[in-house]
Amino acid sequence: MQQRITYICEPVQSELDQVTEMLREMSIVPSFERQGDMLRHLLTFRGKQLRPTLTLLAAKFHSHDPKLSILMATAVELLHIATLVHDDTVDKADFRRGRPTISSLWGRDVAVLLGDYVFAKSAAYVCDTNNVRIMKRFAETIMALSTGELREYLTSFDVAQTREQYESRISEKTASLFETAAESGAILSEASEAEIAALRTYGWNLGMAYQVADDILDFEGNEENAGKPLRNDLRHGVMTLPAILLAQEHPNERTIQAVFDHRNDVDKLRAAFERIQESPAIEQAYKVALGYCERARDSLAIFPDVPAKSSLLHLCDYSIRRDA
Amino acid sequence: MQQRITYICEPVQSELDQVTEMLREMSIVPSFERQGDMLRHLLTFRGKQLRPTLTLLAAKFHSHDPKLSILMATAVELLHIATLVHDDTVDKADFRRGRPTISSLWGRDVAVLLGDYVFAKSAAYVCDTNNVRIMKRFAETIMALSTGELREYLTSFDVAQTREQYESRISEKTASLFETAAESGAILSEASEAEIAALRTYGWNLGMAYQVADDILDFEGNEENAGKPLRNDLRHGVMTLPAILLAQEHPNERTIQAVFDHRNDVDKLRAAFERIQESPAIEQAYKVALGYCERARDSLAIFPDVPAKSSLLHLCDYSIRRDA
Repeated sequence: MQQRITYICEPVQSELDQVTEMLREMSIVPSFERQGDMLRHLLTFRGKQLRPTLTLLAAKFHSHDPKLSILMATAVELLHIATLVHDDTVDKADFRRGRPTISSLWGRDVAVLLGDYVFAKSAAYVCDTNNVRIMKRFAETIMALSTGELREYLTSFDVAQTREQYESRISEKTASLFETAAESGAILSEASEAEIAALRTYGWNLGMAYQVADDILDFEGNEENAGKPLRNDLRHGVMTLPAILLAQEHPNERTIQAVFDHRNDVDKLRAAFERIQESPAIEQAYKVALGYCERARDSLAIFPDVPAKSSLLHLCDYSIRRDA
Repeated sequence: MQQRITYICEPVQSELDQVTEMLREMSIVPSFERQGDMLRHLLTFRGKQLRPTLTLLAAKFHSHDPKLSILMATAVELLHIATLVHDDTVDKADFRRGRPTISSLWGRDVAVLLGDYVFAKSAAYVCDTNNVRIMKRFAETIMALSTGELREYLTSFDVAQTREQYESRISEKTASLFETAAESGAILSEASEAEIAALRTYGWNLGMAYQVADDILDFEGNEENAGKPLRNDLRHGVMTLPAILLAQEHPNERTIQAVFDHRNDVDKLRAAFERIQESPAIEQAYKVALGYCERARDSLAIFPDVPAKSSLLHLCDYSIRRDA
């Protein structure tokens, strides 16, 4: 798995290293040592860096000032990190990527304020690109991300959700940032409007595929490979695509409702998981993810066969991998 | 009191009404009714609107497109509201301006996510000014605000704080936004660099005076007039200027330390309040506020005597009023 992501990153590895260096520099805050400690904890051992990789690859079709795409990739990664800090606070999660979360180490209050700081810092990097169009898209993206999270929170423990509601929710909470990551790379490399639109479509569809696959992983994945606790969504009352498809197919069945009615009953939770795992809902959901992947792939047709395109095509497969 | 602020706002009243209208429009979110309900709760019955008034007055020295300063004033007010939502979450405050807070009505998790949305919306309004210089200042301001709040949180219940530490903390958590509010009004009205610098200095000093006065109010104010609970800072472990001055004058006295050592002991809290109220520390702190006011006033010397200048001069007195 690690090998596959290394191959995908290859055309932009030196830029990714500079993103890492910029994040390292950001965590040195001489005037406020404890804030620096927290930032170092947050910025070391980061994840797969899918989003900054996407920005850098999207910028690779035209020669451009690499400083701009590196700034933007750093901003995109920081925005993702800021949302994780606040999400972990809301979800009361103790671990993320195998390490204790900010809220579990320093408390939820610190996590709220440190998250705000990281949001603002990400916006500051975007400002350094001097590109007003991208600044607007970035602000809209933060609005979409927080709206999606709020929607997920407010609809939790409600079985009666449609696939359309699920899709607009994950569009906001996940695909919006993938979309902006790809679009901004294209804009900063001075791609044509047709190319910008194509990469924007690619990013959105990739994000949708990634989130559907991630939600399937919660049902069938291996915790050690995934690097995070699984079997979480139903327990937190979050209806994802497999659960929605099962509920739509069997409107009178109460397996999931029983989990929400008896929130600490592990037998009811196990029964619901087994029911979904054995039902066709998992394969149906996987087909939905494949559909998004296909549309992401198709949108790249206008680009020449260069290494960045090859990486973006592989990123489609990677985003819906089932071996995690 | 209400009369005095009406007089100050007079030169920009029609613009302020348009800020109110923009905020009303923002709280209509047809696709997500519950988010709209929350925004309406947040945006109705707002406070004194000092910060947007400051932006609009600062823009009044040169004729300019009023849309720009109205956009910016709206952004400044929204940014202030977003910080209040997160601060109330961190402070576990149930009431603000006499009304229940978002976190007390919908829970702290909702408050975190709704606050993020309002932060992003404020940035989106700034982007609509199309002014990169202001966008950068705005992002830096959010970083300063969250750093100041984090610093206050992390230094709570620590008696050994210097006046310098206090001043750099309130510079971040309060004066930074007053500074940006005034500076951005100046920039958008195409003022000269000397005028921009003068209004920036004015805003920062006004913010410092305002916060010192607000901290004095916590010791000697009347809750009904202030519209918020007082006698709060020491109880939450926050060392403000009067407490710091007393502790510096009497390094061996343990009146404040006793409050922090016995956090639920109301007698110790009352003793500390009486001690500070009767000491010269309150008057000494008030002199510090007056000093900031004086410097704010002085920085306006370069402007002609127009109604906006008269309002800004009155705003200095208003910000350190003692009759609240």
